[in-house]
Amino acid sequence: MSNAERRLSELGFQLPRPAVLPPGVRIPFSWVRVHGSRAFASGHGPLAPDGTMAGPVGQVPSEVSLEQAQSAGVLALLSMLSSLKQAIGSLDRIDAWLTVTGFVNAAPDFELTTMVLNPASELLLEVFGPEVGAHARTAVGYSTLPFRLPVVISAELEIAGATA
Amino acid sequence: MSNAERRLSELGFQLPRPAVLPPGVRIPFSWVRVHGSRAFASGHGPLAPDGTMAGPVGQVPSEVSLEQAQSAGVLALLSMLSSLKQAIGSLDRIDAWLTVTGFVNAAPDFELTTMVLNPASELLLEVFGPEVGAHARTAVGYSTLPFRLPVVISAELEIAGATA
Amino acid sequence: MSNAERRLSELGFQLPRPAVLPPGVRIPFSWVRVHGSRAFASGHGPLAPDGTMAGPVGQVPSEVSLEQAQSAGVLALLSMLSSLKQAIGSLDRIDAWLTVTGFVNAAPDFELTTMVLNPASELLLEVFGPEVGAHARTAVGYSTLPFRLPVVISAELEIAGATA
Repeated sequence: MSNAERRLSELGFQLPRPAVLPPGVRIPFSWVRVHGSRAFASGHGPLAPDGTMAGPVGQVPSEVSLEQAQSAGVLALLSMLSSLKQAIGSLDRIDAWLTVTGFVNAAPDFELTTMVLNPASELLLEVFGPEVGAHARTAVGYSTLPFRLPVVISAELEIAGATA
Repeated sequence: MSNAERRLSELGFQLPRPAVLPPGVRIPFSWVRVHGSRAFASGHGPLAPDGTMAGPVGQVPSEVSLEQAQSAGVLALLSMLSSLKQAIGSLDRIDAWLTVTGFVNAAPDFELTTMVLNPASELLLEVFGPEVGAHARTAVGYSTLPFRLPVVISAELEIAGATA
Repeated sequence: MSNAERRLSELGFQLPRPAVLPPGVRIPFSWVRVHGSRAFASGHGPLAPDGTMAGPVGQVPSEVSLEQAQSAGVLALLSMLSSLKQAIGSLDRIDAWLTVTGFVNAAPDFELTTMVLNPASELLLEVFGPEVGAHARTAVGYSTLPFRLPVVISAELEIAGATA
């Protein structure tokens, strides 16, 4: 088990299983694109432990509360970490987080998109430490997200070692 | 003719001419920014073969159907490829697609933004093959896009060889 | 004083002081993430010279006019330059602008997001020159931005020299 997963486990979190797509959904793209030492994570939504989509869905805060959206942000981060583990073998190969982009399914007058993503950013810093985990971030509101997910997260990272 | 263009041609597609801007529109940015082996494509919308903007415009699915938006996504990819060819000389210099970002002009309850971008992603994989063409992707809904375009695509790529 | 700041000063602009966050707002991310020669600027909004948020806030063009949004875009660029100076010591270490992403808090039928970001792009080209300042750009409309800011800007850059 990687150090990152041990820290997650100590904090009471676990990585979900790989995403189980709804019937009929194709994804002609990579959950994580690795090229040399660079890794790009596609937009990830919140997953239940078994890899199925985790609810609730809809707009923040009218259909999904701020607190629910914050939890969804953490689950989206965990699903991204699960994809990263699959793609690069171990989360301990992550040398540096560079950017985290947070997408919030937001009502037009919702102004707390920053707060929606903060628990995910804080977890990332706790798990990877302040040097590796530091990241630039944008977290803004979108008129709609795939499957009406409340939060989606993507990222760019630097990884160590050669890719098999 | 590059291998990529030959494949496009076999599949029945052609690159549009460089974008003809509407009267009075300035673009103080680069359609493609090349720096060393890195290339960044700005947001591109769908073009007609002569480089003028291709319709229809408006929100998906209220003003532009899912099928029309999928076609617009493919046309936006083709206009991005046309800009890339201009910037780097030949599409065969593309070593790796890294990210593709799809912007959909989406009604607040439209949940199929993933499907809007799939034909473009699939074409990219067909033309460049699964190794070069693999890409991380986000495809989400925006409250509005420039000129009310239904779909816009941007990308980051890795290219081979020195830049003139 | 860096050459970039001298140019800004000649053009009548000054860098604001570092951002003063509203009470209770935490930012568990980096305004600028530097890793080797790469720098990523988080989403920045417009600031007053003292580092407090600059108004007006709200949607373009219903609550904030096109002209006000253009000024907000320039102020957002200046606040990003201020963060960059803090992070890398001198703006003259910037070797290349790569991407600039403009986020506009836009009404659903507003189609001039390109124009909102043009003055910021033009200032960037004037201050850094056409080679260093060239950048790929996207500038689209969002249903809401943090604190109802009218414009937010993020960027990726390449910088020279080792990081202390």
